[in-house]
Amino acid sequence: MTDTIAAEQLANPDTRVLPADPRTRGIALELLQEVAALPILSPHGHVPAGLIEADRAFADPATLLITPDHYVTRVLHADGVSLSELGRGDSPADPRAVWRSFCARWPLFDGTASGLWLRDELVELFGVAVEPSAANADELYDVIAVRLAEPGFRPRALLRDFDIEVLATTDDPLDDLSAHAALAALSDVPTRVVPTFRPDAYVSAAPGFADRVDRLTAASGTSADHAGYLGALRTQRARFIRHGAVSADHGVRTAQTLRLEADEAARLFDRVRRVDAAESDRAAFEAHMLYESARMSVDDGLVMTVHPGVHRDHHPPTRRAFGPDTGHDIPFALDFTGALQPLLEDFGTAAGFHLVLYTIDETTYSRELAPLAGFYPSVYLGSPWWFLDAPDAMLRFRRATIETAGFSRTAGFVDDTRALCSIPARHDVARRVDAGFLAGLVAEERLSLPAARRAIRTLTDDAPRRVFKL
Amino acid sequence: MTDTIAAEQLANPDTRVLPADPRTRGIALELLQEVAALPILSPHGHVPAGLIEADRAFADPATLLITPDHYVTRVLHADGVSLSELGRGDSPADPRAVWRSFCARWPLFDGTASGLWLRDELVELFGVAVEPSAANADELYDVIAVRLAEPGFRPRALLRDFDIEVLATTDDPLDDLSAHAALAALSDVPTRVVPTFRPDAYVSAAPGFADRVDRLTAASGTSADHAGYLGALRTQRARFIRHGAVSADHGVRTAQTLRLEADEAARLFDRVRRVDAAESDRAAFEAHMLYESARMSVDDGLVMTVHPGVHRDHHPPTRRAFGPDTGHDIPFALDFTGALQPLLEDFGTAAGFHLVLYTIDETTYSRELAPLAGFYPSVYLGSPWWFLDAPDAMLRFRRATIETAGFSRTAGFVDDTRALCSIPARHDVARRVDAGFLAGLVAEERLSLPAARRAIRTLTDDAPRRVFKL
Amino acid sequence: MTDTIAAEQLANPDTRVLPADPRTRGIALELLQEVAALPILSPHGHVPAGLIEADRAFADPATLLITPDHYVTRVLHADGVSLSELGRGDSPADPRAVWRSFCARWPLFDGTASGLWLRDELVELFGVAVEPSAANADELYDVIAVRLAEPGFRPRALLRDFDIEVLATTDDPLDDLSAHAALAALSDVPTRVVPTFRPDAYVSAAPGFADRVDRLTAASGTSADHAGYLGALRTQRARFIRHGAVSADHGVRTAQTLRLEADEAARLFDRVRRVDAAESDRAAFEAHMLYESARMSVDDGLVMTVHPGVHRDHHPPTRRAFGPDTGHDIPFALDFTGALQPLLEDFGTAAGFHLVLYTIDETTYSRELAPLAGFYPSVYLGSPWWFLDAPDAMLRFRRATIETAGFSRTAGFVDDTRALCSIPARHDVARRVDAGFLAGLVAEERLSLPAARRAIRTLTDDAPRRVFKL
Repeated sequence: MTDTIAAEQLANPDTRVLPADPRTRGIALELLQEVAALPILSPHGHVPAGLIEADRAFADPATLLITPDHYVTRVLHADGVSLSELGRGDSPADPRAVWRSFCARWPLFDGTASGLWLRDELVELFGVAVEPSAANADELYDVIAVRLAEPGFRPRALLRDFDIEVLATTDDPLDDLSAHAALAALSDVPTRVVPTFRPDAYVSAAPGFADRVDRLTAASGTSADHAGYLGALRTQRARFIRHGAVSADHGVRTAQTLRLEADEAARLFDRVRRVDAAESDRAAFEAHMLYESARMSVDDGLVMTVHPGVHRDHHPPTRRAFGPDTGHDIPFALDFTGALQPLLEDFGTAAGFHLVLYTIDETTYSRELAPLAGFYPSVYLGSPWWFLDAPDAMLRFRRATIETAGFSRTAGFVDDTRALCSIPARHDVARRVDAGFLAGLVAEERLSLPAARRAIRTLTDDAPRRVFKL
Repeated sequence: MTDTIAAEQLANPDTRVLPADPRTRGIALELLQEVAALPILSPHGHVPAGLIEADRAFADPATLLITPDHYVTRVLHADGVSLSELGRGDSPADPRAVWRSFCARWPLFDGTASGLWLRDELVELFGVAVEPSAANADELYDVIAVRLAEPGFRPRALLRDFDIEVLATTDDPLDDLSAHAALAALSDVPTRVVPTFRPDAYVSAAPGFADRVDRLTAASGTSADHAGYLGALRTQRARFIRHGAVSADHGVRTAQTLRLEADEAARLFDRVRRVDAAESDRAAFEAHMLYESARMSVDDGLVMTVHPGVHRDHHPPTRRAFGPDTGHDIPFALDFTGALQPLLEDFGTAAGFHLVLYTIDETTYSRELAPLAGFYPSVYLGSPWWFLDAPDAMLRFRRATIETAGFSRTAGFVDDTRALCSIPARHDVARRVDAGFLAGLVAEERLSLPAARRAIRTLTDDAPRRVFKL
Repeated sequence: MTDTIAAEQLANPDTRVLPADPRTRGIALELLQEVAALPILSPHGHVPAGLIEADRAFADPATLLITPDHYVTRVLHADGVSLSELGRGDSPADPRAVWRSFCARWPLFDGTASGLWLRDELVELFGVAVEPSAANADELYDVIAVRLAEPGFRPRALLRDFDIEVLATTDDPLDDLSAHAALAALSDVPTRVVPTFRPDAYVSAAPGFADRVDRLTAASGTSADHAGYLGALRTQRARFIRHGAVSADHGVRTAQTLRLEADEAARLFDRVRRVDAAESDRAAFEAHMLYESARMSVDDGLVMTVHPGVHRDHHPPTRRAFGPDTGHDIPFALDFTGALQPLLEDFGTAAGFHLVLYTIDETTYSRELAPLAGFYPSVYLGSPWWFLDAPDAMLRFRRATIETAGFSRTAGFVDDTRALCSIPARHDVARRVDAGFLAGLVAEERLSLPAARRAIRTLTDDAPRRVFKL
């Protein structure tokens, strides 16, 4: 690093994101030590298996860190930078220009979770210990670009460096899983890369549903009727399990569930395949399929994860121009207590059934999720999701749920990211927040130090292994 | 205590559950001192009067601390222990086996409110200063069992030891209150034990309503029509008042209220007595009766407490097998602003009317409850209820309401428990959280120390006496 | 001050409302220093322009500080003081009696935001460094009355003393703005006093709507039909802009918006002018006019501020006896994500459009407002409003939004007050809370000190200038 870019030092890697009070910080450091040697378990995320199979060098700093990450591009967009300028349009943007635009706007990320992760990546991966700025943008670009060309920066090498023991991808039920099969056969892949069954497109009765169902049943060798449809889902789940899948993920609009008799369900299935299906029928079908997905998980053992409560593509013009996952998915208020009652009445105490609930509506933490997880053996608290994957929000999550449900009912941290390089930073922040939270309980004499040591191991390692059946 | 169970020390009785910052902790200790000598006032709870009248020795550690406490059994149930194994089924469980199961799972309670209370009870009541475990379960069992056999551990002796000045029970309107009468006549009962009028079964139009109304009117010597029904409720309230009752408690599904003309109400009453009553009629009737209950409180002076927003018996199979209050009552989102408007329009400024509002939906604290209590002379903020009766949640309650409503609008702490032995622990935690909260305000120079002394006396003693008319 | 009233010292002006932890407090003081010399920007409030134009002495302590401030009178009302006794009725109350009543009840304000502001005003404006009480009420009254008679305590002198650079009033669209014109022409007014266009009465289809529309179109010289109505609103907005207005404020019941074709809108306009207009039509019209107001802001550049979610006049008897703004406006749960979607779909990325969203429903902070402001270039986070304009609530706001949206998406502090003398106290508390919040981030190594310096300048000065186009 030259003098010109050494002006503003980034945070100390050891003590960052820890409580201010010296005694509490000391306890937190001790607790962090307890889990320092533990590997990363990533049982839910969006890194493509093909990226690891191909194992190619990353193209450049902007294509690695900016353009594909909607956590980052949305902040720049809010500041007036168009998504085209950030390389999301049809014609590619100059990566160096994208990078300059990002560096010049670095203060936008002050205080944000993305800012913490980016800062951590700069320090840990690229040895950059200064704040990006318009002045040092080109120099940083070059420093990073050199690093990206090194063999040690290929995906598989990173997985080893990051000490990622398990990495779950998220996959379409008709994905051939060839990348997963290839990786399983290779000897130089240090990580267990497992697929996740994500049936959204085939259980949500959105336009095009009938065609998707036809493709599903055709690929599964089942009839195209309701029984064949359910059979096809079971067939593909079984195929995923053979490829190592441990969970099925459900990105539903709400958490509503609905119990239906078989003939009633079959008639509903027929109605929602029509192009003019009623909105109420579509909603009922989605609720029913969430219920049926629980039954399938009870039968085949796949952990059921649910991610509800997001208005996807809030700004249709952006969706039309730039596709989905472009930063305008906006959460809304959610109900779990009533919505999940039918499912939990029938499957809530089923042996081996694991249901992990995620939310971006924090109001449900103390009101619904902790009480549910504090009674039903099947229900687990998913880690703070998306906008809530940030220090203050994570602390609120712990404070709103532990008092009711204890440490054993949490499913551990998931990074939920497609940005491979951010995985260590995300897990690091989560561990630091947990250490700070637990240290606070010890300092306030609400938890003994031995119990806190036990708890941080539970949260970091035992819980994800046990809940996700790793 | 032998060496084998001295391994993990429990918390210091003096400094537990206090802020970490040394200066803030010092102020908190000073504030605690201010209320150290004050008795416990328990104006709402569920200890049966018959327990105190009988004054028998408690059977054994499990029957005292585990089996009847749904705060405790639900956590064990979530971990996979069936309620039968915990002694909740038809055939009794071996109490020592229940106790072993609990001790082996002690870490489940780390960080929970129940864990704090249990820890406190072990230390204060049984001199057990170590964490329970599978290894020391039998030894702890024997230590506690010996203590339970001592005369000083009978209910009345405990009431004296605990310095409980007032203890309210919760009673069916047709309860003969003979236990209360007997206790009032005894000279060795140190505590004023008062009944609470809980009319839920007679104002909620659930199945069996007509029969219950018939029993109510028959017992009250009134006609079985609408006028007689209302008269019967008033008659029983008057009887409760003669037995010392200070409040009427309403465990309604929502806080909805409805003003109806007398003839309209009479017709609704007729409809909801039918077995095929419409769901909308039942809801309207319940809302109307909440409104009418306010009118009765205005007339007879009973403090009106409202506990809404819980989906009772969320898991019907457990209800069928083990009865109500078995750990699966789950809160949901609640509205007070619109729901209470008719009631408050007519009775909100009525002289002497006290309406204490409880919630498990924290979102209503700053949004609705504090603004309501900050204007209506009748409205008081109930203490954090049920799942929220825990340090972090209590702190959130204070922080969300005091800035708008001040200290004078809170009704003081209620323990709301059927577990007699947990009463001192619950009040102790509440006082410590308040002391810590107030000490924080002093340390941040938002409140003077004299004002904080005033406030902790208000919260601990003045408020419950004044609001509950003790 | 005599000895009799020196008993209880009020807080230190330098260190009040700052974090307890010494190191964090030190950083906070450093950050406060960064903005100490910056003027007050007040881009939204309710001080009448006529008060400044008239520039008369304030009548007495009670008329200045108690009677007109519904933040204060509501707290006294909840304690049983009638609004008549506080001077809000038809016959004026003795100001000294009002003042005594207030001083005797000073502890009611302990821990409240109003208590902080009043304390600050007593110290800073009147040199009163003791807590008011029944004993010192008369003495304090006299001390303050003397000060009020001084020329240095006239409104214009106060504006200079307070260093208020910009002060926005809130005005009816048909206000002649003569006071604003007069002030603009005067050389001794140190503050830019600008009107704010508040069209509520003309866009909410409440009873009397047709008459108000007729007055609006007549005053604007447009036709009385739908096109004329819209034209009249545009005409008056243009007039406000000529008088210096920078924003239009919308005190709507909900944030619902609705896109309608012109002919459909015209038919709805005709229906809601009838006295028997349907409730659903009124709601649709209000939603449509919120949408159309956005279009007007896109066209003429007025910043659009929205204040939704309050049940106005919750206690109709008080409204009938004492008018609006008498302390019983109660918030309720709110949705922004779905409600604003039509507006944001069409105008969310429009050049130069600024939409500042306020809420009293804190649940929307992390769930909806921060994600919206973190994508749409037009959306800004309004400062904590009304009951939330208090230290703990402000801290919750920062913690719930900054992690998602960063510092650049906030619109800065607005005092929203009609109490001129409370303006410096309100801004001071806000700056202290921000300094404490930022110092915490620095102490926890989540933000560098240079970034924190940058942030406090953004929040205090850059953001209000930029967002409100000052």
